Amino acid sequence: MATQTHTSSEDISVGLAQFIENCRWEDIPDVVRHEAKRSLLNYFAAALSACFDPTVERAAQVYARFSAAQQATVIGRGQRLDMLTAAALNTMMANVFDFDDTHIPTIIHPTAPVAPAVFALAQTRPLSGANLLLSFILGAEAECRIGQAVSPGHYSRGWHITSTCGVFGAAMATGKLLGLSTQQLVWALGSASAQASGLVETLGTMSKSVSMGNASRNGMLSAFLAQQDFDGPAQPLEGARGFLNVTADAPDCQSIVSELGTRWELLNNTYKPFPCGVVLNPVIEACLGLAKHPELLQQGLHALERIELHGHPLLRQRTDRPNVATGRESQVSAQHAVAVSLTRGKAGLAEFSDQAVADESLRALGRKVVFVEDASFAVEAATVKLHWAQGKSLVVAIDIARGARAKPLSDQELENKVRTLCEYGGSGCEPEALIQAVWAMDRATDVGQIMQLVAGKNK
Amino acid sequence: MATQTHTSSEDISVGLAQFIENCRWEDIPDVVRHEAKRSLLNYFAAALSACFDPTVERAAQVYARFSAAQQATVIGRGQRLDMLTAAALNTMMANVFDFDDTHIPTIIHPTAPVAPAVFALAQTRPLSGANLLLSFILGAEAECRIGQAVSPGHYSRGWHITSTCGVFGAAMATGKLLGLSTQQLVWALGSASAQASGLVETLGTMSKSVSMGNASRNGMLSAFLAQQDFDGPAQPLEGARGFLNVTADAPDCQSIVSELGTRWELLNNTYKPFPCGVVLNPVIEACLGLAKHPELLQQGLHALERIELHGHPLLRQRTDRPNVATGRESQVSAQHAVAVSLTRGKAGLAEFSDQAVADESLRALGRKVVFVEDASFAVEAATVKLHWAQGKSLVVAIDIARGARAKPLSDQELENKVRTLCEYGGSGCEPEALIQAVWAMDRATDVGQIMQLVAGKNK
Repeated sequence: MATQTHTSSEDISVGLAQFIENCRWEDIPDVVRHEAKRSLLNYFAAALSACFDPTVERAAQVYARFSAAQQATVIGRGQRLDMLTAAALNTMMANVFDFDDTHIPTIIHPTAPVAPAVFALAQTRPLSGANLLLSFILGAEAECRIGQAVSPGHYSRGWHITSTCGVFGAAMATGKLLGLSTQQLVWALGSASAQASGLVETLGTMSKSVSMGNASRNGMLSAFLAQQDFDGPAQPLEGARGFLNVTADAPDCQSIVSELGTRWELLNNTYKPFPCGVVLNPVIEACLGLAKHPELLQQGLHALERIELHGHPLLRQRTDRPNVATGRESQVSAQHAVAVSLTRGKAGLAEFSDQAVADESLRALGRKVVFVEDASFAVEAATVKLHWAQGKSLVVAIDIARGARAKPLSDQELENKVRTLCEYGGSGCEPEALIQAVWAMDRATDVGQIMQLVAGKNK
Repeated sequence: MATQTHTSSEDISVGLAQFIENCRWEDIPDVVRHEAKRSLLNYFAAALSACFDPTVERAAQVYARFSAAQQATVIGRGQRLDMLTAAALNTMMANVFDFDDTHIPTIIHPTAPVAPAVFALAQTRPLSGANLLLSFILGAEAECRIGQAVSPGHYSRGWHITSTCGVFGAAMATGKLLGLSTQQLVWALGSASAQASGLVETLGTMSKSVSMGNASRNGMLSAFLAQQDFDGPAQPLEGARGFLNVTADAPDCQSIVSELGTRWELLNNTYKPFPCGVVLNPVIEACLGLAKHPELLQQGLHALERIELHGHPLLRQRTDRPNVATGRESQVSAQHAVAVSLTRGKAGLAEFSDQAVADESLRALGRKVVFVEDASFAVEAATVKLHWAQGKSLVVAIDIARGARAKPLSDQELENKVRTLCEYGGSGCEPEALIQAVWAMDRATDVGQIMQLVAGKNK
């Protein structure tokens, strides 16, 4: 049995590595196995939506010049590149819209750096689906636990936590698939620690995607180096000048190894119904309900006097952006989200594109938004009140938004997300076969074949 | 005239990028041009000494699997790989023994991440030597100035400053050679900022070399991305969550743009006479003098009672390591350095190898070392006193060690370093042609040809 509880503060890196070396597929609870598949479905959905995004296009132009072989599929683009390069580009596309998953305790997007690594490796040798899922689960576990140990100070200081912790996840997932020993896994953590990077300052720009791609690429590289006994420090995580102490003010080192094998961080993973900052989830859900309301249709949006958003103070702090210029910015603008949801009755990627933002009538409607901060609201709750002249009003209150931990997207909703985003991305891939293959992947004998279903056509 | 002094705290990144875009070869003083050539000679010496070091061997095995084309020379190994991969490996070998240069105000090794980038690019297109030197000088300038802005807190917190700042140097040097605009150079700084990494915890292990290689590789990548208008934040350096604020407690942002074009940081560069921590320089120099002394030869080393090292407290703090197990550790051990210098009368790479460390008689002699801390000593000074029974003693005092800023290695000494280290590394390269080519490189029309002189033979 791989389950171990470590209590010494001396062996954080070794303790984590031991668990990863020893953990077997039989040790993974069914609910965790299923959540892993849900995370992967959401990953493919997000990646397929962005395979021709300008960030990915420009990166692919440069990266392809430095790719060794046609080993691994670049999702949706009808292109194969070497494992490291394909992993980098697939990570970028899965995360570029921030429509990928969210590990609530850390706000890490766990899957984007880890899944591309294990699928790339799976295209170079026959690997069972159970093996891949096990490695993915362990990689995500390492990534999220390391993220917890440095939270919340790490992100608030300015570290892009998915990038900085993702490299450890990709290293451990790849290392597990390669069958590395505990010592080699510690060395892989060391080479990963030497490559951990990514800054919050880059968010909203293309350069965010560089650190995301590196997380996956360099995590794989760390594992390949460790396989050659390329050594590293004994305590890359907890050492005096190791990752935890350098990037956090008071790291909770112990949380990395506590309850290993019984606490599974993938169970804290969530999936977005809308391509927006999660604090906007309840607001958009309320507005989509209001958009269909007969009273609204009768009174009309133009006659609205005021749109009140009642919610937790974080709602205003994170999303009070009245005049956004780009689709990317609109994903964290309450004004735009409210206006477009009420007007179009939809809140997909098209509603948060540069084109949507250019619609002047949406900006006019957005100016009617008023924030009412109320600390008694949970972050996943909000109330939207529409006011017309002569005292007419409409109210919708959302207690727990869809997509929150307490109200997760259903499997069916995730399947629909794959269908919708696959269509949006323009790869021409067929979502139904992919959906079936992911649900059945624990029985696959050569799981790398899944990548053929998301290959797309060369344009 | 490119010289500009920036006083606004608003435009650090833009100010630096403007200077780099506009600076011309004519703006570079002769003394800086010459120092650049000295830095490059020292770089080739260091790289040639380590081209078959185990760290480089193992990294090359893995990296070569992910190399696209035979574009650029991997020094001494008779191997060509793509530009990014060759740059990474050449950076590793130039730095693996820490025998490369030292920028005194920051303890950055400026050349190792920057030179490999510009030489790799020079092998893919005809570039003049003046162009390459200009780009190298500007890259090193950016790297050292950014390092100064975050010093001393950055390194003491645990950031391996050559790795974290080297990526900016390589990005700016490559960007200059590519003719990037100011805006593109700022974007390159942004993608470099997203990739800045490297931890002090990894020193003494192979994984240090990963972040070193990345500095050069990812700096180049940042410039190639910027060339495709891959954008980044407006203030990657000075932004609220940018590199300076995230990695330093009280960054001196202004130092990055003050006196641009008049203060040249390459003039603060130094070169090591011995492959050791610089605080050991005066101790080794004293011991090499003592080793030849007739009195010592008469009394004998075995009869020594005590070896007193009088020096600045940093000497003891950094080098009091009585029982080292590896050659790498011995490079920062006063006990080993003293014993081997007195015994062999030499202090080259062979004296700081695993083999030398295994000599039990050296360990016995090292146990006689006693530190006498004295804050009145400068770091580059030390006094060594040998005591025999019956009160016999010998003293050598070094006021300013060779290799210090005030007593730099002469051009002739640097040439000899090339000859010695080239021989040590076993590449079979011919040092004389290289030495001549570096001194003459400002007149070269296709400077990439220099790399043929350091190619070595495939083993």
